[in-house]
Amino acid sequence: MPRLSSRPGNIRASPIRRIAALLDAARRKSDIISFGGGAPSIPPPKEVIDYIVTLLREKTQKTVGYGSTRGLPELRSRIAEDLEKWWGVDYDPEKEIMITTGGTEGIYLALTTVLDFNEEVIILDPTYLGYSEAIKLSGGRVRTIPVSVEEGYQPDVEDLKEVVSPLTKAFILLSPDNPTGRIIDEGFVKGLVDLAVDYDFWIIYDAVYKHITFDKKNPWIDSYPGAKERTITINSFSKEASMPGFRLGYITGPPEAIEAMERIKQYVSLAPDTVGQYALIKFYDDGIKDRYLREVVIPTYRKRRDLMYELVKEYLPEAKTVLPEGAFYFFIDMRYYLEAMGRSDEEFSNRLLYRKSVVVIPGSYFGNRGVGHIRMTFVSEPEERIREGMKRIGAYVSSYIL
Amino acid sequence: MPRLSSRPGNIRASPIRRIAALLDAARRKSDIISFGGGAPSIPPPKEVIDYIVTLLREKTQKTVGYGSTRGLPELRSRIAEDLEKWWGVDYDPEKEIMITTGGTEGIYLALTTVLDFNEEVIILDPTYLGYSEAIKLSGGRVRTIPVSVEEGYQPDVEDLKEVVSPLTKAFILLSPDNPTGRIIDEGFVKGLVDLAVDYDFWIIYDAVYKHITFDKKNPWIDSYPGAKERTITINSFSKEASMPGFRLGYITGPPEAIEAMERIKQYVSLAPDTVGQYALIKFYDDGIKDRYLREVVIPTYRKRRDLMYELVKEYLPEAKTVLPEGAFYFFIDMRYYLEAMGRSDEEFSNRLLYRKSVVVIPGSYFGNRGVGHIRMTFVSEPEERIREGMKRIGAYVSSYIL
Repeated sequence: MPRLSSRPGNIRASPIRRIAALLDAARRKSDIISFGGGAPSIPPPKEVIDYIVTLLREKTQKTVGYGSTRGLPELRSRIAEDLEKWWGVDYDPEKEIMITTGGTEGIYLALTTVLDFNEEVIILDPTYLGYSEAIKLSGGRVRTIPVSVEEGYQPDVEDLKEVVSPLTKAFILLSPDNPTGRIIDEGFVKGLVDLAVDYDFWIIYDAVYKHITFDKKNPWIDSYPGAKERTITINSFSKEASMPGFRLGYITGPPEAIEAMERIKQYVSLAPDTVGQYALIKFYDDGIKDRYLREVVIPTYRKRRDLMYELVKEYLPEAKTVLPEGAFYFFIDMRYYLEAMGRSDEEFSNRLLYRKSVVVIPGSYFGNRGVGHIRMTFVSEPEERIREGMKRIGAYVSSYIL
Repeated sequence: MPRLSSRPGNIRASPIRRIAALLDAARRKSDIISFGGGAPSIPPPKEVIDYIVTLLREKTQKTVGYGSTRGLPELRSRIAEDLEKWWGVDYDPEKEIMITTGGTEGIYLALTTVLDFNEEVIILDPTYLGYSEAIKLSGGRVRTIPVSVEEGYQPDVEDLKEVVSPLTKAFILLSPDNPTGRIIDEGFVKGLVDLAVDYDFWIIYDAVYKHITFDKKNPWIDSYPGAKERTITINSFSKEASMPGFRLGYITGPPEAIEAMERIKQYVSLAPDTVGQYALIKFYDDGIKDRYLREVVIPTYRKRRDLMYELVKEYLPEAKTVLPEGAFYFFIDMRYYLEAMGRSDEEFSNRLLYRKSVVVIPGSYFGNRGVGHIRMTFVSEPEERIREGMKRIGAYVSSYIL
């Protein structure tokens, strides 16, 4: 075999995807409770499925035919109306919105379009593990600023000031956050936008969980003065519409940036899935989206969140965490237990799966400051199984500690 | 707005995608006949649509849920069986096959995974216009070897020998070919494989039209001794299953290359469309695929091809072309007419659309040696409209020439 590029050797395979693959295999054998990958366990709205079933039957060829690279105009105009309604920001659906192959492609296109070789991107530590690899794939360098459970996982503008320099090309902000569930403070957003203007860097605002919030609304960076001309937002229908299988999301940004990202997308994926786009057109119609979020998604996840919080307190009283304000993850400082057990977070997670058939994600996967933590999602399992899983974790820890 | 990367500025927007967008707008106004983009005009098999309609209704969440990055195992094993049946080559569905977001992502992942900065990729001139841009996006340099209508658009191993060097990292071969419809001669394949072994470069075999052949079978490079360990094949369901809207294809390659491409895919698109993968599982079952190709796809396209060939001879007797052996394009040397008219191929195409509402693609889009040519597809229009379109082209040319 001829030599491969140095590119794949420089990035790591996603450990969460690996765990997902292991899980698929293991599920056939035993009753595994997954607090692992963020895969929604509630179905999308029935009206949406009924709609595409009818379209597939009655207009087959159009429904499975090619669409344009930017995505169906009827979908983009609905997105613009929706963003205006929710956050009061105007987007031109022709020029400032593009449909992407999930949030993943949105991040990839944004970084590829913005970064030249060796330019720096600042991310939080810990944060979503895909950022560092996508930055490296795009030729950029990763810089980090710390967050910790003591500060409710809120980043500090002073830390950002220390890392920002003329080499800074972009800052990636994820809110609500994965792995911590934190919604970003408005004070930080203001400080970030000021710095981005001063140093002329991009803000990549990953808002894939924007609608999964329990107590307060997620800020929208483009609504801050000076932000819109330097912000690319990343959105996904995998979470808010519970349809990850269609691989659809969208990005917003300045017209020149969207045009540049479209040009790259032509050679990366050509166009987004057509069937899924029709499903999403229906999702925005007749108030289906807001009703689904209000009556199904948020109440379901809120109950699970509150239950998991109670159970973490009960079974892991010495662990430190915060009640997630959004998204669907707990990020838990387990150092008290791990030190007593003499285990790393990864060893703990592996053994927990082996001994108790419960999946959690090692915190070290999310950055150096995630060492000694675990991430648990409440999105995949119903309440009785969250109870059962937490009981197993408690039993496992007790067997070592007591 | 902060500066963008130099990357998008180095690649050109696909002119065919631009024409497709113009066409969408223009269609609402007048009766446009499209010999432009290669979008199938026959629906996929009804059994396949019925199957996913049932799945969407009865197993909604699984059907629209996340799949693994490599694609559903049940689909990959069917692909392996099918390739064994058609070309007698063994692939391990676990290690040597990955589902991609159409052929486009397959090409992008192959190039990104194989190329380091400034390494060379040899392509034909003319050829599919996406290659040069994807090569540049991956940091590589484009080299070309010529093909011409006089040689039936077959490349010459002697030309390849002149361009091959230690800088050569890959050769891209497309067969059946776009824009020319040529099926590659076995003699060239043998010479190519020998050179690839000698100079240790990759063969990227773009076989997206492999099943669209009219008179003979398309060669399969991996069946030549020494080829499989250095070949990545690109496949698409957009053409052979008439389902471009699901954005699905697959690649085969050595296990290490597939593993490396999977690692990059995790950060480019995460995973392929799940709904479409279920559709394709059905496509391979019950003999549906082979029957659909034999009874619907090939007879439909063959009739259109034969008709268009007759009409080109009738209305453009001084043009030079060859009867396409596969795919669904005519590449036509129009220099006799264009010189008489004093028009470039692009001017001709633009005016033909404006005056006669017929879309053809300028040959210069496909490379320097495509200057003075046009590409016409017979995939999008039924026979009576092929007749009407060719009549319009004849009338347009005659008005200048006579």
